[in-house]
Amino acid sequence: MARFPRPPLNRIGLSPGKRARLHHLLYEHGPGGGTLLILPIDQGLEHGPVDFFVNPAALDPQYQYELARDGNFSAIALHIGLAEKYHHEFAGEVPLILKINGKTGIPPDNQAFSGLTGTVEDAVRLGADAVGYTVYVGSPAQDRDFAQLSQVRAEADRFGMPLIVWAYPRGEAVAKKGGRDSLYAIDYAARVALELGADVVKVNYPVASEKDADSPAPYSTLHLSPDDAFRKVVQSAGRALVLVSGGEKVGDEDLLRKVRSSMDAGATGIIFGRNLWQRPREEALRMTRELHAIFREYAQPPS
Amino acid sequence: MARFPRPPLNRIGLSPGKRARLHHLLYEHGPGGGTLLILPIDQGLEHGPVDFFVNPAALDPQYQYELARDGNFSAIALHIGLAEKYHHEFAGEVPLILKINGKTGIPPDNQAFSGLTGTVEDAVRLGADAVGYTVYVGSPAQDRDFAQLSQVRAEADRFGMPLIVWAYPRGEAVAKKGGRDSLYAIDYAARVALELGADVVKVNYPVASEKDADSPAPYSTLHLSPDDAFRKVVQSAGRALVLVSGGEKVGDEDLLRKVRSSMDAGATGIIFGRNLWQRPREEALRMTRELHAIFREYAQPPS
Amino acid sequence: MARFPRPPLNRIGLSPGKRARLHHLLYEHGPGGGTLLILPIDQGLEHGPVDFFVNPAALDPQYQYELARDGNFSAIALHIGLAEKYHHEFAGEVPLILKINGKTGIPPDNQAFSGLTGTVEDAVRLGADAVGYTVYVGSPAQDRDFAQLSQVRAEADRFGMPLIVWAYPRGEAVAKKGGRDSLYAIDYAARVALELGADVVKVNYPVASEKDADSPAPYSTLHLSPDDAFRKVVQSAGRALVLVSGGEKVGDEDLLRKVRSSMDAGATGIIFGRNLWQRPREEALRMTRELHAIFREYAQPPS
Amino acid sequence: MARFPRPPLNRIGLSPGKRARLHHLLYEHGPGGGTLLILPIDQGLEHGPVDFFVNPAALDPQYQYELARDGNFSAIALHIGLAEKYHHEFAGEVPLILKINGKTGIPPDNQAFSGLTGTVEDAVRLGADAVGYTVYVGSPAQDRDFAQLSQVRAEADRFGMPLIVWAYPRGEAVAKKGGRDSLYAIDYAARVALELGADVVKVNYPVASEKDADSPAPYSTLHLSPDDAFRKVVQSAGRALVLVSGGEKVGDEDLLRKVRSSMDAGATGIIFGRNLWQRPREEALRMTRELHAIFREYAQPPS
Amino acid sequence: MARFPRPPLNRIGLSPGKRARLHHLLYEHGPGGGTLLILPIDQGLEHGPVDFFVNPAALDPQYQYELARDGNFSAIALHIGLAEKYHHEFAGEVPLILKINGKTGIPPDNQAFSGLTGTVEDAVRLGADAVGYTVYVGSPAQDRDFAQLSQVRAEADRFGMPLIVWAYPRGEAVAKKGGRDSLYAIDYAARVALELGADVVKVNYPVASEKDADSPAPYSTLHLSPDDAFRKVVQSAGRALVLVSGGEKVGDEDLLRKVRSSMDAGATGIIFGRNLWQRPREEALRMTRELHAIFREYAQPPS
Repeated sequence: MARFPRPPLNRIGLSPGKRARLHHLLYEHGPGGGTLLILPIDQGLEHGPVDFFVNPAALDPQYQYELARDGNFSAIALHIGLAEKYHHEFAGEVPLILKINGKTGIPPDNQAFSGLTGTVEDAVRLGADAVGYTVYVGSPAQDRDFAQLSQVRAEADRFGMPLIVWAYPRGEAVAKKGGRDSLYAIDYAARVALELGADVVKVNYPVASEKDADSPAPYSTLHLSPDDAFRKVVQSAGRALVLVSGGEKVGDEDLLRKVRSSMDAGATGIIFGRNLWQRPREEALRMTRELHAIFREYAQPPS
Repeated sequence: MARFPRPPLNRIGLSPGKRARLHHLLYEHGPGGGTLLILPIDQGLEHGPVDFFVNPAALDPQYQYELARDGNFSAIALHIGLAEKYHHEFAGEVPLILKINGKTGIPPDNQAFSGLTGTVEDAVRLGADAVGYTVYVGSPAQDRDFAQLSQVRAEADRFGMPLIVWAYPRGEAVAKKGGRDSLYAIDYAARVALELGADVVKVNYPVASEKDADSPAPYSTLHLSPDDAFRKVVQSAGRALVLVSGGEKVGDEDLLRKVRSSMDAGATGIIFGRNLWQRPREEALRMTRELHAIFREYAQPPS
Repeated sequence: MARFPRPPLNRIGLSPGKRARLHHLLYEHGPGGGTLLILPIDQGLEHGPVDFFVNPAALDPQYQYELARDGNFSAIALHIGLAEKYHHEFAGEVPLILKINGKTGIPPDNQAFSGLTGTVEDAVRLGADAVGYTVYVGSPAQDRDFAQLSQVRAEADRFGMPLIVWAYPRGEAVAKKGGRDSLYAIDYAARVALELGADVVKVNYPVASEKDADSPAPYSTLHLSPDDAFRKVVQSAGRALVLVSGGEKVGDEDLLRKVRSSMDAGATGIIFGRNLWQRPREEALRMTRELHAIFREYAQPPS
Repeated sequence: MARFPRPPLNRIGLSPGKRARLHHLLYEHGPGGGTLLILPIDQGLEHGPVDFFVNPAALDPQYQYELARDGNFSAIALHIGLAEKYHHEFAGEVPLILKINGKTGIPPDNQAFSGLTGTVEDAVRLGADAVGYTVYVGSPAQDRDFAQLSQVRAEADRFGMPLIVWAYPRGEAVAKKGGRDSLYAIDYAARVALELGADVVKVNYPVASEKDADSPAPYSTLHLSPDDAFRKVVQSAGRALVLVSGGEKVGDEDLLRKVRSSMDAGATGIIFGRNLWQRPREEALRMTRELHAIFREYAQPPS
Repeated sequence: MARFPRPPLNRIGLSPGKRARLHHLLYEHGPGGGTLLILPIDQGLEHGPVDFFVNPAALDPQYQYELARDGNFSAIALHIGLAEKYHHEFAGEVPLILKINGKTGIPPDNQAFSGLTGTVEDAVRLGADAVGYTVYVGSPAQDRDFAQLSQVRAEADRFGMPLIVWAYPRGEAVAKKGGRDSLYAIDYAARVALELGADVVKVNYPVASEKDADSPAPYSTLHLSPDDAFRKVVQSAGRALVLVSGGEKVGDEDLLRKVRSSMDAGATGIIFGRNLWQRPREEALRMTRELHAIFREYAQPPS
């Protein structure tokens, strides 16, 4: 399949600070060559300790930190509490993406909104190379969300800190229009992240289903292949770099096919948590090596 | 038909900063002569990528930027994310109007409210010549909206930044009184924008319908011609300059008649998005030339 | 039973200020040896004077202050009003933990949220060695709670003030998933405190019940022993030190067994209010001496 | 003589706001084509009304404003008081450069330092396209001057406002090393402006004299031609655009030769006050037309 | 000669942000292995364009930037103006140390004091990995200097930004006690930097002279070898990393001997400007390669 190009850092209006920090992630750590391989560990907040049952060692954040270091990830992504308690041993060796809003999975998602858990200045102070923010596109609470994101974005601009937006369709209105995994919703979410100032946007891989019929036209009858659907999402993200989310743990073959499809479509990288740290350490490292091998095929020199 | 005069810049209480910036838009770019021809590209946020299906090239904001430059528009209007990622290549050549609030079209409009996506200071920093703010007149959320607009207006005053208000009737109460396109609702919205401090107000062209019967008297029995109806709206806007919105794509003849009707009524210009960038580039440029030709008829020297 | 280790102060990323203040509590007052024995007196706010009926002397905060001093507690924990009116006589002798948010028990708990009653700077001014903050994990208001906690946490970082988080599952969504005393809810709450930056987390001891069947899998079928359940909670708290809450008054035997179970699981100490000051002074002091005796078994040198 | 190129706007690290504002001055007003023809009227502060005796009409700032408008200057440069009292009539027609520090000529210059008279925010509010700041390079007070300039520069960065630095060697130490008009001093001053963040630097044209022998080697024996000397200064200014100062009134021939020499050396334009407004209006307009004719030879398209 | 160890990053109380940024300089760019090879280009401000006569190409800061990139330096060190105008092309490839105070060489040094030219926040915004501050130890103005440094240090702590102190003995009192190059003065300056919060201290290599007799005892009769003298300075700097300054251009052999002597003494690296960029490019690159070869001998793994 034809490969689609990634946005080059020197064309997309980055301030020197954002560019230096993204360069650090894209070329000096992880697989390099302009790609991103990120290990998120915010599930303890978003889902609770339940995600660690399958691999009890992963309950200790030290496990993910060592995996990020030994697997040579581009960065680890987590909240302020873990950063303050665990990052000091890895500062310099493992780049940090500070996630600065979040919520628990306990209340229902129909009015989804994530309050702040940290600040851009916390990220500066900790030497992070980016901040992460979750926006719930389409939620009835999106007005508050946009305003909160707007302030975070302004702070990120002020400090030259790259802004990674977790762009998630959520809420009762989304559910009625095809659901959170529909192409309609994910495509819209990618564009919203671009419009609101994301430097990097994290999206889920769209999943076709019969609920697509509830999406607005022409999405309701589009019937794109998975590859084509994801490529559409990447194009909607424009000059925002795209990260594909791993989601729940799936089989190796499915995982690697999703990675290749994403990278072919012009994604800059992946952010896989449960699919890596829910595995035993040796298996996680083996899979990480396979990911590195794939990423090498997509390496490009700095622009 | 008699032409109605536009408010002269030297009579409407503008601070020097607002006046200098409006002069830049009204006389130094676009058709000039005191008119405005603005290309908005906020539909990716307001409607989603769905608006770009009819002309896939338009999904890339570079398309609209080149159209604005090559078609010699007075300005382009968009949100912070597009401004930061695309404007740097056109800074100076294409004047910028920064839209600073918005929402997606996913949740229903019955409680419509647009959260902030940027600030007046962002507009200053980017060298914009105006900010755009959407107020949903008549929405149950209008109290928050007015308070938010009030803060934006105060910041705009502080920085000498012209404030363009997208004055849209919306919400369940509007729906019961003739609907968002009724003369009743649009006329009211134009006046609200004037009352709350708009320097320029963007309104839709009212559409008569049988639902007008639900409007309060005497609107319910007014039956004005389209020309007269729009002229009434312009008069309600007082010393706020008026922009007429393009709305959904319509035929050429209809479009040009709407433009003439608006300008005759005393409008300062038009803000047409889909009616231009949903066309292929050459057709869009041809239509733009026709618009320039019309605007030349309405040119006036600076006051 | 095997004893689980407590997090050592020199490994958990503490700033010098936090470390000095925790050292003061853990080694220079109370039972020492790296343990905490804290006397809380915030029940007058949370429950009202009703809690003092069983021992009317306890209505006068002087009673608890003298108990804390004469029983050699590690610290007393209370709100700003009590601190300002009573602490001056004990400053230096009884270390202070300033509780800085709270609520009454009058409205229902389905949207639980505690507003601020003081600031970290108040704590600094009063010479406190820590601040206490209650977060209601899972409450529909948790977005506001996280944002408020985030600001408190940032202030605590700025001033080197240890942050003790009262991590309480609450609200209508918690009630539907096993309730506030379920392992699911308490385990999640402990992790949330860690993620959001608690240096110390106060948790309740989980209580198994048939409502556990409403918890998400695998909690719904876990059926851990009390000891094992609490140990799980301590592990979820990671590098946050754990305090176990006393809750309502229980019998001596139950109380002491709970203390041993907690300390064996790796807790750093206990925070017992009603179980101590609802007793007559002499009985309270006798029980305190028993607690000191137990704590001596768990003493360790500074790290 | 070979012409040296001017720094292109798209290569010199300008933010979008600075670039848009400089574009306004360099291409949309005045002679255009990337040049600057600026009329300063800060002599009333710097020298006092004495400068207006030769042409009493010039005592009224309206005189200079009309000259700037009718002579089509790129901008007028003056202090806040004149801007507030006179600019409102010309806002939009005559671009504004707000001079934000200054002093009188009454005390001696041996410890020269100019206090603030306005702020960058004043410039934003008034719709100015640049601010002007005088730094006295080599003055014993230069430490305070640098700190003050640093704050102005940071505000200019924050608001995207171009910073024009009047780089003047002054003070007793300068006098001992060849004096304020020596190549040594002016060359140094140009570099200092570059180092401290000037977007545009205003310099005097160096004048060779026997005092050059007091300059540090190799300046003491350099003996460059006036053209070569000025070219050296332009090169020391690097990516800061260079404006040459008019200084005291001189004969037409001398004036025009200085202009050509400066433009050949890579200067972006001139800032001539007394040499224009000390002439009667008609003579000033005639000279301005001659300057426009010269500037047209140096016109270049936007980069 | 025995080699003295350098302070290990994990033992010297660095916050995570400082540690991450120093790791970037010490291990990810330049010779690595815990060493620093820094190219300063602040001489245009401190000495004026006079320093560029010997190699005119060096007048253009692009020259030094390309040298830093092609010679693989750990970082370039310069003032805000050069950073804003030239760094954007090298952001990510060449780490930045922002020098934030400075002065010209025009006034005499008897009351030496350097005013601020930038801020720690500027450094954050530009993605710098450290700030540089010059303190004139022993100057009559040192009270203002210490206060200014104290504010810079506090900002650096707040943002996790490493602070590199140019510790220079200067002023009329220093001149009377052996002079600015005496062991007495340099040893004192190194300790002052440690006392005032430097993370890294830049010192000159002491030069024995007969003026040492004017130094206080026992310095007046110490007569240490150059190696021993420098080792004493490094020991006085304690847990501040030491950079040795290049000073004026000297012969190759002298230069390399100074480097070895410094590294043997426990210095972390060198900051050589004129000794490198006053050479023609090829010769500068050759010398840089020799320096890399030496640094490889001193490489150590991260601590």
